[in-house]
Amino acid sequence: MNVSIGVSARHVHVSRDVLDVLFGKNYVLRNKKDLHQPTQFAAEEMVTIATEKSKIENVRILGPVRDYTQVEISKTDAYKLGICPPVRDSGDIQKSAPITLIGPCGSVNLKEGCIIATRHIHVTPQERKEKGFDEDEVCVKIESEKGAILEHVHIKEASLSYFELHLDTDDANALCVKDGDICEIIK
Amino acid sequence: MNVSIGVSARHVHVSRDVLDVLFGKNYVLRNKKDLHQPTQFAAEEMVTIATEKSKIENVRILGPVRDYTQVEISKTDAYKLGICPPVRDSGDIQKSAPITLIGPCGSVNLKEGCIIATRHIHVTPQERKEKGFDEDEVCVKIESEKGAILEHVHIKEASLSYFELHLDTDDANALCVKDGDICEIIK
Repeated sequence: MNVSIGVSARHVHVSRDVLDVLFGKNYVLRNKKDLHQPTQFAAEEMVTIATEKSKIENVRILGPVRDYTQVEISKTDAYKLGICPPVRDSGDIQKSAPITLIGPCGSVNLKEGCIIATRHIHVTPQERKEKGFDEDEVCVKIESEKGAILEHVHIKEASLSYFELHLDTDDANALCVKDGDICEIIK
Repeated sequence: MNVSIGVSARHVHVSRDVLDVLFGKNYVLRNKKDLHQPTQFAAEEMVTIATEKSKIENVRILGPVRDYTQVEISKTDAYKLGICPPVRDSGDIQKSAPITLIGPCGSVNLKEGCIIATRHIHVTPQERKEKGFDEDEVCVKIESEKGAILEHVHIKEASLSYFELHLDTDDANALCVKDGDICEIIK
């Protein structure tokens, strides 16, 4: 069974409160580009993410606003920033790494919120049933000069969902694959 | 069968002629640290690698001087530099990517020489026989939160050799492993 790859660059999800501080009270994110996942978009707005050791500028915010603020980076970014974020599913930020967000109107020191995202496949409940994903994890076979069978690929079920495998830039670069490439799911 | 992982950061091997231009006629590389591979060392000397698009400073030279000049980078580096080096075994640089080396005494425009190194395991002919590596490639199973079975891991035989799996920083970061970690060879 095949699935297309979506490569996730480092990005930030923001809560209403945090967006107020970074860009001003009641600021509305501008949609730069719709993402494949329904309702999700890359915003025009970008922030700097910073630690005591270093910073990375021009990190894009993904909209819409969420109930929590979360920074998703790669292990390569983590070394640059001198932090050790856990590998987590999106939304699971308790006791994740601290990080600072800097916007044009202000900055926010997050005590937690920075993670390395788990490899995951987006599916609807209907697709999950049809495709027979009984377990919470599958493996994925990537064919390339630096191919691999990736383990611990989580199944992420949501009623609004586009069927796609999300890998971070470390995975994509290590495996020499790019956005839109096709790979095989192994149950 | 287990093997320890050696993570190779970006680095440069230089020929006598190129070292002469970069650091001065008959310059002798200074040994900063012996590598696990016999006779090989990380030199004190570093260069800048550059393309029209960008540059990366402080790229370490590995000694001793070789018959050819070769730059080994990751895919992540390649995106930054705006080039597309092939995935190759060390020494196989024909029609690889062009790159410029800049040292304190001069610079060299290489028409070819930049590669992404193939994943490989160093073995002596004796070890190869004992371990039964009949093929030129094996697979390697990496256990971690972002584990995988890596394919296309080349067997690199040399009489002076330390038994070790070499991965680049993209592989190491994608898989969340570090120098000295242990993994399993699957024939």
